[in-house]
Amino acid sequence: MGVGMARNLAKVGLLHGLWNRSADKAHALGAETGAHIATDPAALAADNDVVVICVSADADVLGVVDALLPGAHPGLIVIDCSTVSAGAAREASARLARRGAAFLDCPVSGGVEGARDGILAIMCGGTAEAFEAARPVLEAMGRTITHMGPTGYGQSTKATNQIMCAGVIQAVAEAMAFAKAEGLPLEKVIETLGKGAGSSWYFVNRAPFMARGSFPAGFRVRLHDKDLGICHDMAAVHGVELPVVEVTRGHYRQLMESGHGDEDISTIFQLKDAMFSPKAS
Amino acid sequence: MGVGMARNLAKVGLLHGLWNRSADKAHALGAETGAHIATDPAALAADNDVVVICVSADADVLGVVDALLPGAHPGLIVIDCSTVSAGAAREASARLARRGAAFLDCPVSGGVEGARDGILAIMCGGTAEAFEAARPVLEAMGRTITHMGPTGYGQSTKATNQIMCAGVIQAVAEAMAFAKAEGLPLEKVIETLGKGAGSSWYFVNRAPFMARGSFPAGFRVRLHDKDLGICHDMAAVHGVELPVVEVTRGHYRQLMESGHGDEDISTIFQLKDAMFSPKAS
Repeated sequence: MGVGMARNLAKVGLLHGLWNRSADKAHALGAETGAHIATDPAALAADNDVVVICVSADADVLGVVDALLPGAHPGLIVIDCSTVSAGAAREASARLARRGAAFLDCPVSGGVEGARDGILAIMCGGTAEAFEAARPVLEAMGRTITHMGPTGYGQSTKATNQIMCAGVIQAVAEAMAFAKAEGLPLEKVIETLGKGAGSSWYFVNRAPFMARGSFPAGFRVRLHDKDLGICHDMAAVHGVELPVVEVTRGHYRQLMESGHGDEDISTIFQLKDAMFSPKAS
Repeated sequence: MGVGMARNLAKVGLLHGLWNRSADKAHALGAETGAHIATDPAALAADNDVVVICVSADADVLGVVDALLPGAHPGLIVIDCSTVSAGAAREASARLARRGAAFLDCPVSGGVEGARDGILAIMCGGTAEAFEAARPVLEAMGRTITHMGPTGYGQSTKATNQIMCAGVIQAVAEAMAFAKAEGLPLEKVIETLGKGAGSSWYFVNRAPFMARGSFPAGFRVRLHDKDLGICHDMAAVHGVELPVVEVTRGHYRQLMESGHGDEDISTIFQLKDAMFSPKAS
């Protein structure tokens, strides 16, 4: 996703420097956009007022932040677009604050396509001051940009969304497996119930995958599973297990083990469908 | 719901006769609409070409059909708008067929308000011939009328919808309880995530109930629980238990036992909310 975001920053003249763990990737994008290749994250931080991070997990974000720290300076704003825990966001923010730099947790939704097209939804946590200062950068990358509250609130909002996706895909998959077992014409079911109170984005947009038995990504099982692990950890801070999340993680483990990890999450339909024996009537 | 439907039939001149288990109700509606009060269901069947039934459970539908049978005749179409099992619909159809009469299972969605306003969604099962013949009656009561297939397919479609509602309300309630525990501004969460891929009718329309902690019906727990019992029985025909349905039935039992049976199903949020201890941070 980082490539799409960097290209959109370059388009509006906001991409001054680049760094990537793979030097090849950094050089390719530097050649394409004319952006300077920084020797390391600290140099990037020293030379710029805003740094955008997009990595994978809590440890990655904190690792990059630590690597930035020697170059961090008052006035620097670090924007992290990774989906990680709210706790990791608060820790990153605290480490940067010691050097006078600000941090915004800005997880996105909209996938690789949204990043490429600059139409991501971006959910932000941090001070209102840092958010307003960073707005031109955020607007270059996304379309719906919301300041949710203090540090960590961007991640908490993203986690809320990922929990909801888990439950909705369970609902749609179970209902569609039942409909198929009953012998219903599935396209007509989607058309009819898609207008009703049981409907959802996933029903309208992914139940057709289930009707066809084909699950092109989409939102990959592997990635949603990673996000649900974060939701699990965040709920654990409250001493709670989230039932819908845990059931879905169990399904995802099964799906990844049987080679479906890179399919769209609507592939969970296959597990529900397998519950049913051939139509009884 | 039957009153609203009968009034809409009367408006277009299609309500000729009435019968109700409570004679008082029948007389009141007869006085209001000018419809004839039948002495019993058999008399109603004998005097009319179409009879509309709206009751509660499998046994009620079969009971009314048995009471109609002495008056059933070739050309009669019995429309059952109750939500019952597909198996009950097939049994009712078979009993009427022996007297040359047709049966349509036509469960509705849209609630008491939809019935009053004549804007119900009606999902129909039965022969295309009976469906076409009954269309003026169905159109007087509903707005979206769909012939799903042979007898029972209306009920199977309705059950599919009720399964989906169970899963979606689980998803929304769990996500909102998490969001609340994280301290997020709930109205802003609804506004932001309501536009995204995790969204649903229930999120947009019922998450605000959760944010306010008030759950006016709506779709009552007691009624959805009844429908989920039907889904349970229909799944059992396939030798299957539906996990989302069973978890939700467990929650509904708890809610009904603690006096929440007449609240909207979004009251399930209270169970999810109770899982969380006070905010840990």
